[in-house]
Amino acid sequence: MRATILHRPGDIRFEEREDPKILAPTDAIIRLSATCVCGSDLWPYRGIQEVPGPTPMGHEYCGIVEEVGRDVRTVKPGQFVIGSFFASDNACPHCKAGYHTSCEHREFVVGAQAPLLRVPLADGTLVATSEAPPKELVPSLLATSDVFGTGWFAADAANVKPGSVVAVVGDGAVGLLAILSAKHMGAERIIAMSRHEARQKLAREFGATDIVTERGEEGAARIKELTKGVGADAVLECVGTQESMQQAIGAARPGGFVSYVGVPHGVQLQGQDLFFRHVHLHGGPAPVRHYLPELIDLVVEGKAEPGKVFDLTLPLEQVAEGYRAMDERRAIKTLLQP
Amino acid sequence: MRATILHRPGDIRFEEREDPKILAPTDAIIRLSATCVCGSDLWPYRGIQEVPGPTPMGHEYCGIVEEVGRDVRTVKPGQFVIGSFFASDNACPHCKAGYHTSCEHREFVVGAQAPLLRVPLADGTLVATSEAPPKELVPSLLATSDVFGTGWFAADAANVKPGSVVAVVGDGAVGLLAILSAKHMGAERIIAMSRHEARQKLAREFGATDIVTERGEEGAARIKELTKGVGADAVLECVGTQESMQQAIGAARPGGFVSYVGVPHGVQLQGQDLFFRHVHLHGGPAPVRHYLPELIDLVVEGKAEPGKVFDLTLPLEQVAEGYRAMDERRAIKTLLQP
Repeated sequence: MRATILHRPGDIRFEEREDPKILAPTDAIIRLSATCVCGSDLWPYRGIQEVPGPTPMGHEYCGIVEEVGRDVRTVKPGQFVIGSFFASDNACPHCKAGYHTSCEHREFVVGAQAPLLRVPLADGTLVATSEAPPKELVPSLLATSDVFGTGWFAADAANVKPGSVVAVVGDGAVGLLAILSAKHMGAERIIAMSRHEARQKLAREFGATDIVTERGEEGAARIKELTKGVGADAVLECVGTQESMQQAIGAARPGGFVSYVGVPHGVQLQGQDLFFRHVHLHGGPAPVRHYLPELIDLVVEGKAEPGKVFDLTLPLEQVAEGYRAMDERRAIKTLLQP
Repeated sequence: MRATILHRPGDIRFEEREDPKILAPTDAIIRLSATCVCGSDLWPYRGIQEVPGPTPMGHEYCGIVEEVGRDVRTVKPGQFVIGSFFASDNACPHCKAGYHTSCEHREFVVGAQAPLLRVPLADGTLVATSEAPPKELVPSLLATSDVFGTGWFAADAANVKPGSVVAVVGDGAVGLLAILSAKHMGAERIIAMSRHEARQKLAREFGATDIVTERGEEGAARIKELTKGVGADAVLECVGTQESMQQAIGAARPGGFVSYVGVPHGVQLQGQDLFFRHVHLHGGPAPVRHYLPELIDLVVEGKAEPGKVFDLTLPLEQVAEGYRAMDERRAIKTLLQP
């Protein structure tokens, strides 16, 4: 097959690679219906994260099960399935606590920007839909695999409840779906921090009630101003930089909640600052598997359309252009069709 | 009157100072029944925190109201009252959210190691008992003013629930009362980290089920070992150093809760480490006023005896020896009698 390989920062190639095979008896091979480019793929693409050598890319996926290992019990060939970027056993104490991305047997899924993908721990990782979905639902189902689940975790980890005043830092696909998630959880007011017109529009469509264009300390001050000096109940940090984290912490009320769901790059927090700000802090790699059944239902029942974040659709072989468009912020998120 | 003044690190004097007066119409003057030395008083005493000049010391207090300003409505002369180290209006949005120590009008209470004390915002700060308490309850009521409230917040901020597996870092008075608090909240297992025999004994009396003497990474590893590799549901960090914070974070399970209630000194947290550990983090100056009514009831009804942390009682004029005994860890906590 031909698949996506990152050779060096900026150098994405769609090239020949061996077809994936069942390696462990708990593996499944799926034929992808759709895949996409993640904001986190841009870290190595931009050279901010090291590229150790030619690296198969992609960890968001949905598709039809092609083959399963001999120990796979619940997943069957022919089923339409969705899984998370971390394979999990769905059985260990961490999975039972809802933290599948800290599973004792977790394994990162790699190489999803391809026609075929090996998924480890298939029973614990994949969730099947009751029937093959109509084509128009595929983008939204693909979104549950990572970006919607991550936005949902951002809202959940920040304790968003009916009536909450929420601020979202970051207008990438995760930030936008954090808005959609907060709306579904009953937030009364959702302040989106964005300077980008197309993203502001989608933010409003997903449920944002206010837009703040200021950043950093000014952004935090503006949130305070909008909340009568109090600050937001919940701030969802969906970027992962020092500036965005400080902005999020500064925008929360004392006793408020800050969640962070983008891998922090070079973020350092001062204990004494956090202490006197009185914020709750929680984040990490989103335990998407925990939320998958609920999110798939929302999509299948037509209650949420997270696939709207895909504003560029390309044939898989044009994956390099998909990266470029996101890197240059011409696209929010690129869907790739194998 | 004669009162406690810190002149330089290590130099505590009990010397003449003007009697406190009503400065604002919302003030009250109380005559102290008892006061004490706080672990946080040791930071400037040890020179770890700057001493800007002669500083009146003490912020834990209970006693009889002597005089009130003309705007004070609920507090009356003759009442026995207890208050927190931060005065609060008990009316602003932060107080209503239970975060009195972030009150919009908060003011630090200073100079409680004295016979008389001015308390600002008396109505919002002081809680009166229904009658004058018997003498033997005074130490436990004094403890609610800070150290018990802070231990209680440690347990509350770490989400301790019936059945929780709890670890407590720090065997000072706050750590010991965090154990008592966790026990009251229904923790099933409470692991105290302590190397000090007398403190271990009190820890067990307050509800500790296990004692861990290892520290740092070894301490965290020991907690994991005791919890079948999972980690504690709740870790209560009651020290405030980089080492104790790392130990606490390392001892929690993914999805677990770490609270921190001692002012962090030089503590820096790496965003990426917190992210992949999946912990919840919450702390700050304990909103003691929020808990005071409940804690006073526990003491008056004989359900909790937090005053047991006072293992040294001295006349107020011997306050310097009270500091020395705590600094040298000869005493857990010194009660001072004016």
